[in-house]
Amino acid sequence: MIDLRSDTVTKPTDKMRQASLEAEVGDDVYEEDPTIKELEAKAAEVTGKEAALFVTSGTQGNQLAVLTHTKPGQEIILEEDAHIYKFEGAAISALAGVQPRPIKGTKGAMNPEDLEAAIRPDDIHFPETGMIGLENTHNQSGGTILPFENMKEIYEVARRNQVPVHLDGARLFNASVASGISVQTYASYTDTVQFCLSKGLGAPVGSIIAGSKDFIQRARKWRKRLGGGLRQAGIIAAPGIVALTDMVDRLTEDHKNAKKLAEGLDRLDGLTVENDVETNIIVLNVKGTPYTASEFVERLKEKGVLAGAIGPDSIRLVTHLDVTSEDIETVLKLIKGII
Amino acid sequence: MIDLRSDTVTKPTDKMRQASLEAEVGDDVYEEDPTIKELEAKAAEVTGKEAALFVTSGTQGNQLAVLTHTKPGQEIILEEDAHIYKFEGAAISALAGVQPRPIKGTKGAMNPEDLEAAIRPDDIHFPETGMIGLENTHNQSGGTILPFENMKEIYEVARRNQVPVHLDGARLFNASVASGISVQTYASYTDTVQFCLSKGLGAPVGSIIAGSKDFIQRARKWRKRLGGGLRQAGIIAAPGIVALTDMVDRLTEDHKNAKKLAEGLDRLDGLTVENDVETNIIVLNVKGTPYTASEFVERLKEKGVLAGAIGPDSIRLVTHLDVTSEDIETVLKLIKGII
Amino acid sequence: MIDLRSDTVTKPTDKMRQASLEAEVGDDVYEEDPTIKELEAKAAEVTGKEAALFVTSGTQGNQLAVLTHTKPGQEIILEEDAHIYKFEGAAISALAGVQPRPIKGTKGAMNPEDLEAAIRPDDIHFPETGMIGLENTHNQSGGTILPFENMKEIYEVARRNQVPVHLDGARLFNASVASGISVQTYASYTDTVQFCLSKGLGAPVGSIIAGSKDFIQRARKWRKRLGGGLRQAGIIAAPGIVALTDMVDRLTEDHKNAKKLAEGLDRLDGLTVENDVETNIIVLNVKGTPYTASEFVERLKEKGVLAGAIGPDSIRLVTHLDVTSEDIETVLKLIKGII
Amino acid sequence: MIDLRSDTVTKPTDKMRQASLEAEVGDDVYEEDPTIKELEAKAAEVTGKEAALFVTSGTQGNQLAVLTHTKPGQEIILEEDAHIYKFEGAAISALAGVQPRPIKGTKGAMNPEDLEAAIRPDDIHFPETGMIGLENTHNQSGGTILPFENMKEIYEVARRNQVPVHLDGARLFNASVASGISVQTYASYTDTVQFCLSKGLGAPVGSIIAGSKDFIQRARKWRKRLGGGLRQAGIIAAPGIVALTDMVDRLTEDHKNAKKLAEGLDRLDGLTVENDVETNIIVLNVKGTPYTASEFVERLKEKGVLAGAIGPDSIRLVTHLDVTSEDIETVLKLIKGII
Repeated sequence: MIDLRSDTVTKPTDKMRQASLEAEVGDDVYEEDPTIKELEAKAAEVTGKEAALFVTSGTQGNQLAVLTHTKPGQEIILEEDAHIYKFEGAAISALAGVQPRPIKGTKGAMNPEDLEAAIRPDDIHFPETGMIGLENTHNQSGGTILPFENMKEIYEVARRNQVPVHLDGARLFNASVASGISVQTYASYTDTVQFCLSKGLGAPVGSIIAGSKDFIQRARKWRKRLGGGLRQAGIIAAPGIVALTDMVDRLTEDHKNAKKLAEGLDRLDGLTVENDVETNIIVLNVKGTPYTASEFVERLKEKGVLAGAIGPDSIRLVTHLDVTSEDIETVLKLIKGII
Repeated sequence: MIDLRSDTVTKPTDKMRQASLEAEVGDDVYEEDPTIKELEAKAAEVTGKEAALFVTSGTQGNQLAVLTHTKPGQEIILEEDAHIYKFEGAAISALAGVQPRPIKGTKGAMNPEDLEAAIRPDDIHFPETGMIGLENTHNQSGGTILPFENMKEIYEVARRNQVPVHLDGARLFNASVASGISVQTYASYTDTVQFCLSKGLGAPVGSIIAGSKDFIQRARKWRKRLGGGLRQAGIIAAPGIVALTDMVDRLTEDHKNAKKLAEGLDRLDGLTVENDVETNIIVLNVKGTPYTASEFVERLKEKGVLAGAIGPDSIRLVTHLDVTSEDIETVLKLIKGII
Repeated sequence: MIDLRSDTVTKPTDKMRQASLEAEVGDDVYEEDPTIKELEAKAAEVTGKEAALFVTSGTQGNQLAVLTHTKPGQEIILEEDAHIYKFEGAAISALAGVQPRPIKGTKGAMNPEDLEAAIRPDDIHFPETGMIGLENTHNQSGGTILPFENMKEIYEVARRNQVPVHLDGARLFNASVASGISVQTYASYTDTVQFCLSKGLGAPVGSIIAGSKDFIQRARKWRKRLGGGLRQAGIIAAPGIVALTDMVDRLTEDHKNAKKLAEGLDRLDGLTVENDVETNIIVLNVKGTPYTASEFVERLKEKGVLAGAIGPDSIRLVTHLDVTSEDIETVLKLIKGII
Repeated sequence: MIDLRSDTVTKPTDKMRQASLEAEVGDDVYEEDPTIKELEAKAAEVTGKEAALFVTSGTQGNQLAVLTHTKPGQEIILEEDAHIYKFEGAAISALAGVQPRPIKGTKGAMNPEDLEAAIRPDDIHFPETGMIGLENTHNQSGGTILPFENMKEIYEVARRNQVPVHLDGARLFNASVASGISVQTYASYTDTVQFCLSKGLGAPVGSIIAGSKDFIQRARKWRKRLGGGLRQAGIIAAPGIVALTDMVDRLTEDHKNAKKLAEGLDRLDGLTVENDVETNIIVLNVKGTPYTASEFVERLKEKGVLAGAIGPDSIRLVTHLDVTSEDIETVLKLIKGII
């Protein structure tokens, strides 16, 4: 099976498993796990933030940002396809009591003027604006990179209005490797940043949330309430360290493979690639074939390729650690056979 | 002063005050206030619902609908300028833990297809869709009437998907009087409906939420939690009964006055009426004058007319009980003087 | 019928109704209702606080205190029979996301040492202590007066630990009249105070929450979210002003009547008064009679007296504005007849 | 260092690490991780429940129970020292919007009559009782075992009143091993049960929540909202399987060591063991020594023994996997030296 559904399916490498085997551990609720501490220190350094916290998922990192930055009855501004708004089970409202204020973007990027207009003035009828959420790369736009200038302008708007900015950087390393802008530089234009050790970086479990010391201290308490306070967590932190050390540069392979696949698909009759393939995600339109997206995905599955239907005619294909250049050729051949 | 800021500023009539003076009262927490009971019975009849509950404001009625229909972690679909989403302090998220899913409408009316597409399928990442909210007349579109066909189509979509519909009918009587469709007919295409006794109907305080007996029983408990359980409330219910009995037909006067004002304004150089004036709200654009909306409002105030700036160039003018046909002429003359 | 169930059943006096008839009103959401402003100014003065806010019930006032003083995930310390904990539908948790920490008291008064021991130290497992709630008079202990020394000691503990104190003074005027300590003096040992204009003071609807200007400004916004922002509210504020002006001294009558009733009952075979009758509440034990509390209440009802069973053998009797000295004699005679 | 602070500090065994190294993994958000599935199947079997779910901590398991069983505005009944009430950061209120109703127990066991009296009757002022929470062994009482008869009686009360029961069985295997009553038998008197794979069973991370299929499906969605949906989680599930398979019987060693330590301490002048040492927890009173609990703990630390002060004169000592019989002798000798 070649699994192109998501980069979340990556299996830990042997080196990661070995690191886990040998990890020195302690009780992280007491802040005594040396491997967690090493990972968090490394993550703080990489993001250029004062402190970092290991969390069990990107969703947990994002929710901690919302819980820590905001108060109930506030509003947070997000691009209308943001993961935090669309794919986290309305947790921002259920857990933090805040309301999303989605605004339409271009390839995931909000216009700074639209954003500033959405910040609420002081009025008895209005929630206060408690946070601005960015996402880079932007999942629903097909892994597009948030333009650096856009991030800077938004951060300026945010500063001027004293609203904190959180970056959902589940795939920030993909953006960094593709754009040549360091994670630290990106993160310098946000108050807090979350990135995933799983997904493209290949760790089995976990993400990081980074920010000021005070922020992380308060986020730690919210993490405990969510049940994210772990014991001998070094066993999962160790693969995370390998992810940060060894797996970042490799993302260029995923991007090359995605471009190769996109180009091959675009040449086939009846298929169109909907998105600009800037990183590792392809959105394939199958309207020109006899199949709906679901039917197409079914055919692929029969041939040994997994993909996900994300609309009536749209299929998402994601390259990652466990997909080789040869796999791409195989997939192209198989798809040719289908249409 | 001629106050055109909102129809919320209406003063109770002498008859209302007299009704209050003579109202028989009891302790409504024990459900023993006869005047409240009379008003609620009348409101149930008017809306064609099994039961009705007096609440202290439209916001309280809407929030009770959300609290009673939904569970935390759900999503509610609303037109993107809905009062519940834009003007209630994010209370749906703060109190009920639900997330709004705003969708773009046309003069306040959501396209039923867009709405159906926004209902969430079953997926671990998605909130369930817990409620659909309508608003008639639609405040932010300038008091426009939700097309009856649209309401019917939306209700059908809702039924098919087993999602309850709540109608924010703060100005439902304006819609009814203008369209000739009875409040009961409108309400038959929603599960619950809220309407205001204040605003155009002129009562000093209060609104009604109506629905099934079971719904009202549960809403009553939530009302108690919000501190809306009153004691000798007959004193405010009595004017509400007058509002329902005597004040409905007079809304046509407000609509005539609004049309007269709109036509007069449209004829003046530099002024445009932005909205279709279907009921009692005018949105006036002053871009063609030397003034911003705020400056224009300031000039009006100096001349004895109150209005509200609702955008850089937009001013809202609302007719109501305390604005006569002569007032309209005065206002037109004064505005002529300004430009 | 002589209604001894609660002092919440009091009917507004003629003077109150007349005041309502004549009240000058405005739109209180715009803070333009002169009668509301007069009442709030008077209430601020009476409590010695910077500002006061009219709310529709004692529950709403208490909930606004919790919503404004605390943050979700905090804990509030209360006596274990406090109204806020026992009789407000778990609203503190449902609306404000805080956990009660009930501690056992003596006649409603918490031991300052127990209280200080219950304040949470800093620990990742613990909620922070966000508020201390007092209640004076203490409803469930039978209208007992919180000893002034106790209030002072608790306030000192609170100051030392930087925890705000809120006083649920639904019947604070009863405490004041009975103890001779002014409401202002009591209130000077709390950060915020709520008292009811209804109950013994006889207004048909409403309570007051008082505190610092900043507190009241934030509480006002929460009141709007709860749907407690009213329009021409002067119509209910006017009776509230009468309540504050004319009805306070009268409470001594209720206390005299309660003592007279208690003494009479205690002399009857099979009946015991459970509480120290310090104000207007009697808790009557009927264990020595052939009846359960519910049966006893039923017999009373047949004879024209309403009372409430609050335990298997306990009945609550409350004196108020609409109960005269003659009524007390009638009640004693009727009860004699029953046993 | 001999670490007696808690059994949470246990290090994973070599076999656990090896199991992790070799674990087959998949993406558990897609429910495709075979090792997680194996663990969950095993946990369902051990507890006799239809389904089980891996969670990252006991707190997460408990919070999922509350989130899934209850609705905001409800109340849950707990013993007054329950972990869910005292040590989970008020998360039940912050996340689920429910209020605890703590009642006094005897060695952690609530009297069934007290409990039944605490279930709320139907009344507009009262929250509904949404859950009853038990804890076995009971941490704060010193690891005492909930009497089986007591659990049965409470379950009967709960059934009769249609209130679900959740068992916080963080140390349920300790109770089972000590009492000879199987985990399955215990669990048959609760609707849902949480137990920890970490603590005495020695796994590095994780707990289980078990219940009906429908319950687990809904809990899974709440777990996603909390950020507890993991990817290649088999890497942590594998040690959990070892914990369930190999580590249960060994708990008797911890209990023997605890008894040995308790007996030794009781014989020393100035020391008293406060609790009945039924499992692996000792509460030591040092009032008879010249030291406060904190000072005593400090002295122990200097000598290479870690313990926790849990009161002014009380110290908690916990035996576990990484404490041998020889360690106990060493500790006794060192303590003798201190006093």
